[in-house]
Amino acid sequence: MSQSDIERLIQLLSKLPGLGPRSARRATLYLISRRESLLTPLSEAMAEAAANVKVCGTCGNLDTTDICAICTDPKRDKSMLCVVEDVSDLWALERSEAFTGQYHVLGGTLSALDGIGPDELNVEPLVQRVANSNVQEVILALNATVDGQTTAHYLSDRLSDSGASITRLAHGVPVGGELDYLDDGTLSTALKSRRAMT
Amino acid sequence: MSQSDIERLIQLLSKLPGLGPRSARRATLYLISRRESLLTPLSEAMAEAAANVKVCGTCGNLDTTDICAICTDPKRDKSMLCVVEDVSDLWALERSEAFTGQYHVLGGTLSALDGIGPDELNVEPLVQRVANSNVQEVILALNATVDGQTTAHYLSDRLSDSGASITRLAHGVPVGGELDYLDDGTLSTALKSRRAMT
Repeated sequence: MSQSDIERLIQLLSKLPGLGPRSARRATLYLISRRESLLTPLSEAMAEAAANVKVCGTCGNLDTTDICAICTDPKRDKSMLCVVEDVSDLWALERSEAFTGQYHVLGGTLSALDGIGPDELNVEPLVQRVANSNVQEVILALNATVDGQTTAHYLSDRLSDSGASITRLAHGVPVGGELDYLDDGTLSTALKSRRAMT
Repeated sequence: MSQSDIERLIQLLSKLPGLGPRSARRATLYLISRRESLLTPLSEAMAEAAANVKVCGTCGNLDTTDICAICTDPKRDKSMLCVVEDVSDLWALERSEAFTGQYHVLGGTLSALDGIGPDELNVEPLVQRVANSNVQEVILALNATVDGQTTAHYLSDRLSDSGASITRLAHGVPVGGELDYLDDGTLSTALKSRRAMT
């Protein structure tokens, strides 16, 4: 049928996370009505991303160069290594501007249910990387989920002989959070980990 | 900065309706991890849509030909003309498969607040089209909003000399709707427009 160009665009857009058939139709009409300002630039940006974006061979970050900008940045502290599950977690930490060391992207968490063991993750390169460099501290910045914490314990075991100190993110009350709305687990952890007022 | 390809893609995706910065980042990672199956096809589909999709000169529908497939389809009833606000409404009616006539896309509704008068809409071509063809019935399938109904009344006036009968969609209880959840306006309209059981 002759509307196939439009229907194909709707069908592909509806595969994006967060878009269903209805919002994909809306996005398609929006794009077609903004051909010069959005549709063509987006098409080109996607083609460029498809051609240029690579996975960094050292840390697993995404960038347009083989070794990413973070790994090659001489100003970043090579003695601190922050282990994250996904690139999106790396981006979140970069946005916080609170970390100036280097990263290692695992590519997921151990999960017995989903059949994901250490071999499916970027674990062996991490162990090698810590062994063959002068990393002083490995921060396990994994999600505070069951799988994330299982993975953190596993990595802590694997890295125990490396000589680097192994740390994890603090649990506690989120900044701006109200106690009344917090779950019991977070509240009891925050209480146990209480700090002296300074 | 060297991550600009990725950041540009995120920034453009976040302009789509229904996507904000967070979901645009998620969609970008999703796309990059599905380069062959989604990112490249989507980029190509967008380029093709940008190059090929045209507005039908007769009805205002979007298609890859100058006169759209609905306007040129000999099987469609040329005596019935359905007036809709937007292409998305045309698509909704086509999905329902309940209408086999032709369409006319207004491109919006009259709106005093937004400064949209008849000249900003596809009104004059509609009046000409009805005058110069053997349209027997014009169905004003506009949204049941204040602006939509204002526009319907205006069009009804403008088309009153054309000889075609002017109709509008029925108001009433949506199929599957529960009375308890309906607003008073819909309920009282449905009661006034009650029909004999057949």
